Amino acid sequence: MAAQQKNVGILAMEIYFPPTCIKQEILEAYDGASKGKYTIGLGQDCMGFCTEVEDVISMSMTAVTSLLQKYNIDPKQIGRLEVGSETVLDKSKSIKTFLMQVFEESGNTDIEGVDSSNACYGGTAALLNCVNWVESSSWDGRYGLVVCTDSAVYAEGPARPTGGAAAIAMLIGPDAPIAFESKLRGSHMAHAYDFYKPNLASEYPVVDGKLSQTCYLMALDSCYKTFCRKYEKFEGKQFSITDASYFVFHSPYNKLVQKSFARLCFIDFLRNASSIDEAAKEKLAPFSSLTGDESYQSRDLEKASQQVAKPLYDEKVQPTTLIPKQVGNMYTASLYAAFASLIHNKHSTLAGQRVILFSYGSGLTATMFSLRLRECRTPFSLSNIASVMNVAEKLKSRHEFPPEKFVETMHLMEQRYGGKDFVTSKDCSLLAPGTYYLTEVDSMYRRFYAKKAMENGSLANGH
Amino acid sequence: MAAQQKNVGILAMEIYFPPTCIKQEILEAYDGASKGKYTIGLGQDCMGFCTEVEDVISMSMTAVTSLLQKYNIDPKQIGRLEVGSETVLDKSKSIKTFLMQVFEESGNTDIEGVDSSNACYGGTAALLNCVNWVESSSWDGRYGLVVCTDSAVYAEGPARPTGGAAAIAMLIGPDAPIAFESKLRGSHMAHAYDFYKPNLASEYPVVDGKLSQTCYLMALDSCYKTFCRKYEKFEGKQFSITDASYFVFHSPYNKLVQKSFARLCFIDFLRNASSIDEAAKEKLAPFSSLTGDESYQSRDLEKASQQVAKPLYDEKVQPTTLIPKQVGNMYTASLYAAFASLIHNKHSTLAGQRVILFSYGSGLTATMFSLRLRECRTPFSLSNIASVMNVAEKLKSRHEFPPEKFVETMHLMEQRYGGKDFVTSKDCSLLAPGTYYLTEVDSMYRRFYAKKAMENGSLANGH
Repeated sequence: MAAQQKNVGILAMEIYFPPTCIKQEILEAYDGASKGKYTIGLGQDCMGFCTEVEDVISMSMTAVTSLLQKYNIDPKQIGRLEVGSETVLDKSKSIKTFLMQVFEESGNTDIEGVDSSNACYGGTAALLNCVNWVESSSWDGRYGLVVCTDSAVYAEGPARPTGGAAAIAMLIGPDAPIAFESKLRGSHMAHAYDFYKPNLASEYPVVDGKLSQTCYLMALDSCYKTFCRKYEKFEGKQFSITDASYFVFHSPYNKLVQKSFARLCFIDFLRNASSIDEAAKEKLAPFSSLTGDESYQSRDLEKASQQVAKPLYDEKVQPTTLIPKQVGNMYTASLYAAFASLIHNKHSTLAGQRVILFSYGSGLTATMFSLRLRECRTPFSLSNIASVMNVAEKLKSRHEFPPEKFVETMHLMEQRYGGKDFVTSKDCSLLAPGTYYLTEVDSMYRRFYAKKAMENGSLANGH
Repeated sequence: MAAQQKNVGILAMEIYFPPTCIKQEILEAYDGASKGKYTIGLGQDCMGFCTEVEDVISMSMTAVTSLLQKYNIDPKQIGRLEVGSETVLDKSKSIKTFLMQVFEESGNTDIEGVDSSNACYGGTAALLNCVNWVESSSWDGRYGLVVCTDSAVYAEGPARPTGGAAAIAMLIGPDAPIAFESKLRGSHMAHAYDFYKPNLASEYPVVDGKLSQTCYLMALDSCYKTFCRKYEKFEGKQFSITDASYFVFHSPYNKLVQKSFARLCFIDFLRNASSIDEAAKEKLAPFSSLTGDESYQSRDLEKASQQVAKPLYDEKVQPTTLIPKQVGNMYTASLYAAFASLIHNKHSTLAGQRVILFSYGSGLTATMFSLRLRECRTPFSLSNIASVMNVAEKLKSRHEFPPEKFVETMHLMEQRYGGKDFVTSKDCSLLAPGTYYLTEVDSMYRRFYAKKAMENGSLANGH
C-alpha cells in the first residue's frame, strides 16, 4: 500500500476584501436603530461591501493571482483548484471555471476540482476535499488551491447590518505550517430551513434569525460532543477547552461567537471537564437540569456562561475576531478570515499550538476540526503568511461610505443582480493596484473583467 | 505514515428515473421536425421527464433509500454523503441537507460532504472527492455515498428533445468491484460559455449547441492526451484504445458519443498508436494535416473516422448506451447511467476489465479516468449490482405520454419553477412503490415530500 503524505494542510493564504465599507455606528444611527444595536448587540464594528465593479468572481481572481504572485508559484504547479461559495451568479457554470482564466497563459488546464456549496460551509467542504486529495493516491505532487468567495447582502431591515464580502485563497500541500489533525473531527448535518435562498431571482436570502441561531448552537453542541468522543478515542483522555490554544468560529456577527464559546464552557461544565473550576461550577449549577431546548432559550444561562467564559474568551477567541468584526459576514470566507485574524495577531507564538475551527452553513451542515500549527521555512512560515496578508494595511486603507451612498449602492446592486446587457462605471479609483473589476455583462450574460494596473506601471496582465 | 486503502471505488449502485417518458419518434413528428432528426440525428430513442410530483430531491431520496434498503446498509454506517447536481431549487441550501431526512430516524448526523457543482460534471467531482476521502487519513471506516441527480429541461425549440431526468446513488469504499486506477486520470478545465444558466429565474439554460459540441470534443482531446501521457509514465508503454475494454462517455445525446469515440480513433491515428490498422490509416490519411479547429468542423473527417471506428464502437461503446438513449440527458447522472448500462449488459464478463470514463460539464470541466472491474462477493458483486438496478424492468414499466400531455407537463413545470405556495396533485399512481414525491411547497418555499407505500402494504416510512 502507498503511504499518505504527512502534515497536510495550508501552506499559504491570501485575503481580499473590498476597499469600500460602512461603520456600523453610522449605519445604526441612519437606520434609526437604538444606540449600540449593531455595535454591541451584534458586536460588529464595520461592514465591507462590493460596489458595482466588484463581485465574487473578481474578488476571487484578485486573491488567487495575488497569492500566486506573492509566493512566486508557477501556475503550472497547481494540480487542483476548488471554490466554496453561496453567491450564485450562474446556476451551472462554476466560479472555478472563471478562475481558469488566470491559468490560461500558462497552458495548464489539468486542474481538478469544482465548486462546493452549502451556505457558509462550502469553503470548508472544499478545504477538506483538497486536503484529502493530497493524502490520496490521485495526488500528483502539485499544490492544491482552495478559494472561499462571497458577497453577503440582505434586504433592508434588521438583517442588513450582518452583510460583508471577501475572498480568501489557500495553498494546500504536505509539510504545511497549518496542518490538519484529520482524526479529530466532528460533523453535524441535518435538514433545516433557518437560512436559504429559494427565491432564485433575488440575491437576498429567506432568514429566520432566531431559528438560525438555535440551529447554529445545536450544531455546535453536536459537533463538539462528537469531536470530544473522537479525541478521547484517539488520545485516551478527556478533551476540554483547555486542550486547544484557540477556537475559531464561523462568524455571522461577533455576538454569536461570544455565545458559542460560552456554550462550549457550559458543555464542558455538563461533561464535568477539567476546564471548569469551582467558582464557575457554582455559577452554572442552576442551569444543569435545563433541557437542551430550554438551554438554547435561557437568557440567564447565556449571561452566566458568558461571564464564566470571559477570561478564556479573551485569551482563546478574541484574537480571531478582528476581520469578521471589521468586514462582517463573509459567508464561506468568514471562518477563514477569523483564522487569518489569529495568524495576523499571534503568528510569532503559534508554532506547536492546536487551533480548533467550527464551520457552520445553514440548511444545515457543520464541522468542528483541529489544526496543529508548525514552524516552517519561508515562504511557508507563519510570520510570512501574516506579512503577505498584510491585514492591518488592508483594513486601514479602506474608504468609509456615508449611509446614503451605501444604500444607493445596494439599490443599484439589487437591480443588477441576475441582469444582462449593462456596462459598469469601470471606476476602479478606490481599488488597490492588481485588483480585478467587472466592466460589462453583455446581452448573452457573459461577464467581462479587467485588472487595475500594478503600481510599478506594469500592464494589467502583469507583464 | 499511514497506508492508503486499496481498490477504493464503487461497491454498489442504484438508479432511479421517472416512470414518465415520451418517444422521440413521436415528439419529432409532433414538433414538425424532419423524420429521423431526433432518432438518427441525435441518436435518441426516448426521453424521461419529471411530472409535477417529482424533482431532483424526490428522485435522490428514492435512489438513496432504495440503495440502503436493498443492500441492507444501516444508515449509521454512512460517514459521507455528497451530491452532484446542476438543478438548482435553492441557491444556498444543498440537496445533501434534504437527503439528511433519510438519516433522521437513525440519529446519524455525523456525515460529511455537501453538493458539488459545475454543469454535468458535479457528480464526477463528488465521486472523486469521496474516493479520496476513503484513501485519506480522515476516513473513519464507514461507507461513502455519492448521489447524482438532475432534471434536464429545455425551452421549446431544437434543444428540447435533449432533456432527461434521473438520480443515481453509489456506495463507496475499499475492496470494491469497481475500483479506481487513480493515477490514470487527465483533466481539462477552462473558461467557456457553451452552456450556462445565468437567467436565475428560469430553469432553462442558455445554450450554444455548436460551441458546446466543439468544447466537448476539445476537452476530450486534451483529457485523452493527458491520460495517455500519464499512462505511459506509469506503465512504461504507449496507450491506445485497445488497452481498455470499454469507453463510457457523458451522453448529452447519443450522436455525440459516436463522434467522441471516432475522435479517439482519429487521435490514436495521429499518435501512430497500435489500435489503427493499415486500412484505417489509409482512410484517415487525408485528414492528417488539418489544424485542430479544422478537424472539429470537418464533416468528411467525422464520416471517415466514424466509419473506421464502427467495429470498435460496437464492441467497446454500444453496451454503454442503453439508458442514455432511453432516458435522455440526465446531466450529472448521464455518465453513470451509461456505466450502469454497461453493468446491466455485461456484468458476467466484466471482471478484470479496464473501463475508461469521460466526464464533461459545460463551462467547462472535464476528466477522463480509469476503472478496473473486479470479482467481489455478494452483495458487492457485479452481477448483484446489475440485479439490484433491475434496469430492464424499470425501462419496461414506464408510461409513454402523448406529446400534448408532455407539453402540458412542461408548461406546468415552467410555471412552478422557483415558485411557492402551491400543492401538487399528489397523484402517485404512475410511481413505483417506495418512490418519494412532492406534495407541497408552502408560502415560505419549504418543500414537503411523501413516500408511496411499499407493495407489501408497509407504511410509507418503510415500517
